[in-house]
Amino acid sequence: MAGRPQLVVFDVNETLSDLTPMADRFAAVGAPPHLAATWFAGLLRDGFALTLTGANPRFAEVGEGVLRQVLAAVPLERTLEDAVAAVLAGFGELAVHPDVVPGLRALTAARHRLVTLTNGATAVPQGLLTQAGVRDAFERLLSVTDAGAWKPARAAYEYAAAECGVPVGEALLVAVHPWDVHGAKAAGMQAAWINRSGGPYPGHFLSPDLVADGVDDLATQLAVV
Amino acid sequence: MAGRPQLVVFDVNETLSDLTPMADRFAAVGAPPHLAATWFAGLLRDGFALTLTGANPRFAEVGEGVLRQVLAAVPLERTLEDAVAAVLAGFGELAVHPDVVPGLRALTAARHRLVTLTNGATAVPQGLLTQAGVRDAFERLLSVTDAGAWKPARAAYEYAAAECGVPVGEALLVAVHPWDVHGAKAAGMQAAWINRSGGPYPGHFLSPDLVADGVDDLATQLAVV
Repeated sequence: MAGRPQLVVFDVNETLSDLTPMADRFAAVGAPPHLAATWFAGLLRDGFALTLTGANPRFAEVGEGVLRQVLAAVPLERTLEDAVAAVLAGFGELAVHPDVVPGLRALTAARHRLVTLTNGATAVPQGLLTQAGVRDAFERLLSVTDAGAWKPARAAYEYAAAECGVPVGEALLVAVHPWDVHGAKAAGMQAAWINRSGGPYPGHFLSPDLVADGVDDLATQLAVV
Repeated sequence: MAGRPQLVVFDVNETLSDLTPMADRFAAVGAPPHLAATWFAGLLRDGFALTLTGANPRFAEVGEGVLRQVLAAVPLERTLEDAVAAVLAGFGELAVHPDVVPGLRALTAARHRLVTLTNGATAVPQGLLTQAGVRDAFERLLSVTDAGAWKPARAAYEYAAAECGVPVGEALLVAVHPWDVHGAKAAGMQAAWINRSGGPYPGHFLSPDLVADGVDDLATQLAVV
């Protein structure tokens, strides 16, 4: 780490929110629960593909399109449209990981400036963080909708830094997704990888400056930078 | 379709090759077979992410990195390295779909110029098509390695057309993947979607000019263009 960051930029989906209940949503409509992981990887695949062709699609629209494809391939206990709606509803009812609230409280106590930056709509972190009682920890909730391109495109990270009046190199992205860490590093931002599972970091991506096993651990590590 | 295409550009993985045996490879190392789909979606997700940051990674390297992540999260009946090697070996032993050989024969009989364009190495279609006895149907085997960017980036499609001396709008991409159809259309190429499963085409992507249920059906449809 190149000193204390002037701004900490949190990814939202899976970094703050716990997506594991999505598997139960698939099970509830009669689909195999493991399709949740295939769906989310496919959502990002298609979103990145669109970004590569210069589009800046709505996250929810891509999520619904991929979900319809994934669910159309398996027998369901209700109509496809009902199943799609039931699974998508689950995305708005997720909770934060247990390490998130103590971690955010420690970061704000240490007077860090915190914002979120998501490929989705800002309504998702707004609901998630309000529900968890930590909306006040964040100065801004930013979305790539206003950046012109999804993460991991450089424009998304530059947008977040510029919106907050901080040089991109003085900001720290925090994410569970290696592709997000890579995008931040490629854009000249610092990056922390939240590795809750203990799995390996892929060698094909630029490495993080810092690895933490949760947001609480991140706060502890940043306290001594 | 805007008339008979001057060049037919085939995607390779899943368009010509049948990836379903990959699920057995996962099962053989003690992993859930459904991880094959999550792995392949994750491979494309990470490859597209790298392409978005200006990199042009080797397909095999990304595939191996994502596979190591996917397999590290589950109990295995052998070491992680052995399991990774065993699954990856399966990728070189795939066969073509049943509709491919008759389709290619019909297209060559109708004097279509055929090439492949893959995000992977040309060694894969070389082995696959030789094994199927249809290597001679293709004038060239092209890879994005020489294009500077993975599909669905515009540069990949422009590269294929330029290499073959054909205006991009006179070439027809053939792919099972909607993101590939979208990329071709965004680059000004024509595109045919091979839909073997009968599933829906995602509304977030540009639509194909033609939909066929296999390469044989594609040949039949092109015969009357």
